[in-house]
Amino acid sequence: MTASPTVRLAVPPDDLFGIHNLPYGVYSLPGREPRVGTRYGEHVVDLALLLGDDTFASGSLNPFMAQGHARWAEVRAALTTALSGDVPRDAVHAAADVSLRLPFEVADYVDFYASEYHAANLGRLFRPDNPEPLMPNWKHLPVGYHGRAASVVVSGTDIVRPAGQRKSPNDPAPVFGPSVRLDIEAELGFVVGTGSALGEPVAVERAEEHLFGVVLFNDWSARDIQAWEYVPLGPNLGKSFASTVSPWVVPLSALREAKVPTPVQEPAVLPYLALDRPWGLDIDLEVEWNGQVVSRPPYSAMYWSPAQMLAHLTVNGAPTRTGDLFASGTVSGPAKEQRGAFIELTWGGAEPVTVAGQERTFLEDGDEVVLRATAPGPGGTRIGFGEARGRVVAARHGGEV
Amino acid sequence: MTASPTVRLAVPPDDLFGIHNLPYGVYSLPGREPRVGTRYGEHVVDLALLLGDDTFASGSLNPFMAQGHARWAEVRAALTTALSGDVPRDAVHAAADVSLRLPFEVADYVDFYASEYHAANLGRLFRPDNPEPLMPNWKHLPVGYHGRAASVVVSGTDIVRPAGQRKSPNDPAPVFGPSVRLDIEAELGFVVGTGSALGEPVAVERAEEHLFGVVLFNDWSARDIQAWEYVPLGPNLGKSFASTVSPWVVPLSALREAKVPTPVQEPAVLPYLALDRPWGLDIDLEVEWNGQVVSRPPYSAMYWSPAQMLAHLTVNGAPTRTGDLFASGTVSGPAKEQRGAFIELTWGGAEPVTVAGQERTFLEDGDEVVLRATAPGPGGTRIGFGEARGRVVAARHGGEV
Repeated sequence: MTASPTVRLAVPPDDLFGIHNLPYGVYSLPGREPRVGTRYGEHVVDLALLLGDDTFASGSLNPFMAQGHARWAEVRAALTTALSGDVPRDAVHAAADVSLRLPFEVADYVDFYASEYHAANLGRLFRPDNPEPLMPNWKHLPVGYHGRAASVVVSGTDIVRPAGQRKSPNDPAPVFGPSVRLDIEAELGFVVGTGSALGEPVAVERAEEHLFGVVLFNDWSARDIQAWEYVPLGPNLGKSFASTVSPWVVPLSALREAKVPTPVQEPAVLPYLALDRPWGLDIDLEVEWNGQVVSRPPYSAMYWSPAQMLAHLTVNGAPTRTGDLFASGTVSGPAKEQRGAFIELTWGGAEPVTVAGQERTFLEDGDEVVLRATAPGPGGTRIGFGEARGRVVAARHGGEV
Repeated sequence: MTASPTVRLAVPPDDLFGIHNLPYGVYSLPGREPRVGTRYGEHVVDLALLLGDDTFASGSLNPFMAQGHARWAEVRAALTTALSGDVPRDAVHAAADVSLRLPFEVADYVDFYASEYHAANLGRLFRPDNPEPLMPNWKHLPVGYHGRAASVVVSGTDIVRPAGQRKSPNDPAPVFGPSVRLDIEAELGFVVGTGSALGEPVAVERAEEHLFGVVLFNDWSARDIQAWEYVPLGPNLGKSFASTVSPWVVPLSALREAKVPTPVQEPAVLPYLALDRPWGLDIDLEVEWNGQVVSRPPYSAMYWSPAQMLAHLTVNGAPTRTGDLFASGTVSGPAKEQRGAFIELTWGGAEPVTVAGQERTFLEDGDEVVLRATAPGPGGTRIGFGEARGRVVAARHGGEV
């Protein structure tokens, strides 16, 4: 038996995909089945070949995630060691040569509403006569709703402008057609690695054992469709046409240096939501619109943490599964240039922004939006999340069906 | 080779599980893997053995459903013929000897709100000062929201009373504990057999090709949890703890005689919702509470039809998948004794009902609810749906976590 050729990968420690990151994703080469890989500098490294473990000869992270957090730690340690030494040459591909797939099969998908700045901005926009912009429940529980798992798509997927019903307050009846208020929501998504049984809540202090990693998440939103449909049962078709995730799942264990206290929660939360450790995340997002960065939402400003979201959504006994995805809701900070949705950034369309020399309120056909983020890593390094990219294309059939 | 022993099954044509029904389900025998079967009279017949098709040697209907509506018709014809002749003895089990499983893997689950009587009753209860009980959007689109697919359980599964936050209008802050207003919603669920691609709406006239069958559906609801959480993003934990489906999926092709016109829809619906054939369903439900039938909701009174629900939920380009489940929302008729939720039947708890000699408003621990339904079949026969049964058990740990 001849030893396979090997190669040493030289990646500077301050690379956004350096040795302290090692996110998980699913890649494919032309004509080949998708497999699990990690991103290391400009390389994508095949994990089944690197580690000799067929769990990774899979088109989805779900089998690995289901093995549990002790195994996640083992694999991360093995990966860190393996990438520091000789790597089988046939396990290594240039990142530019592979295509990236949806990294996991989404089980249930829930979207939260965890930014106080975002919730308060929408309250001021939609209920201008109400002196209190937040709803009475907002500071007592992380408000959230279920969305469509089948519409979660990977970065790079075109976003077809959705058609649907809309009705302006002065219209006598709704009209049907392509959305005219197409928006984004810059969010983070949290991926459940190991589920929990029916009737067994996940206590907030056990969240770390269930949460596998973090993705960028763009919750594309048709504001006109949503405004007409959402009373009293919440958003549906205004959201369900597409949600974009980044292809690399950054493991929670790569985000130790990003953990910060959440903002003070006052009034005090009920005991099942009380945190026993810092669960805020000092992750800096950026929103690029047609090549121009228009917003830099700070995740550290989020009121509700992912551990609280998971504890809340299971406190009634609802089960979770490998592949469950819950997203934070729009990340917005206190400043205008930190708002993570265009409805906030343009104040409902009343204050257009100049994007690459053109006035914009909502998205036009051909517009492209890219979300990016970084977090602090060890020794002054940064952890990159890659990107969640989507381009808006015209409604099909002019929106007629 | 010796021919296997065979048997003739004598089932009267007017049996609720007679030759005109032949629903699909998943059964198991002690210590054996679950498999697909049909219910015929008091027998459960194994389809892989009966038809010699390994598609049915599966613990789920999904592989069969994914084969499409032409194949569904072939199999139904083959089944009808096979059950009228000699049947391999080892394919036949007594219904009492098998346990029934969740018949399909639920992909996305959506709950609608399609009964005008139910929506109007809730409007009168929750917005008594509003002269118009229906929301302005209600007659223009089938209002619905996504629910939790993982919490769909099969008939017979105990329903653990959910704990959560609730707040009465006069309470200064929310309290945490077991729900004190636990309710049911008697519904039908519609099972998508073949999905539709991202960006490709299912036209209302193509719904028949995608819809595989119908189940009973009990959307257990914690009204106190729901009331506190649901503004502005809709129900979440008030519903996500459990939803019960019946184990037998009645194929849509068994319900030809049940098709009736829907009630007149006025104002006229938008073209994408206009029906080209009768899509109402003359299905009579009954709600049994601790052994006593307390309500008989008529599905024929439903305003929105399943074809319209499917057309609506895909009109924005949202994809569907094999195993998608959408439910009708509570089935209520015009009369008090036709109301499919206890919040309506007891008018928010103000008008208790006497159930087996005891006063009841909402569900108490130990209460059992069974939904049943029948529909007209050929020649004066009736098609049975079996039952969706659930017993309420006390919150675990007294609701503490």
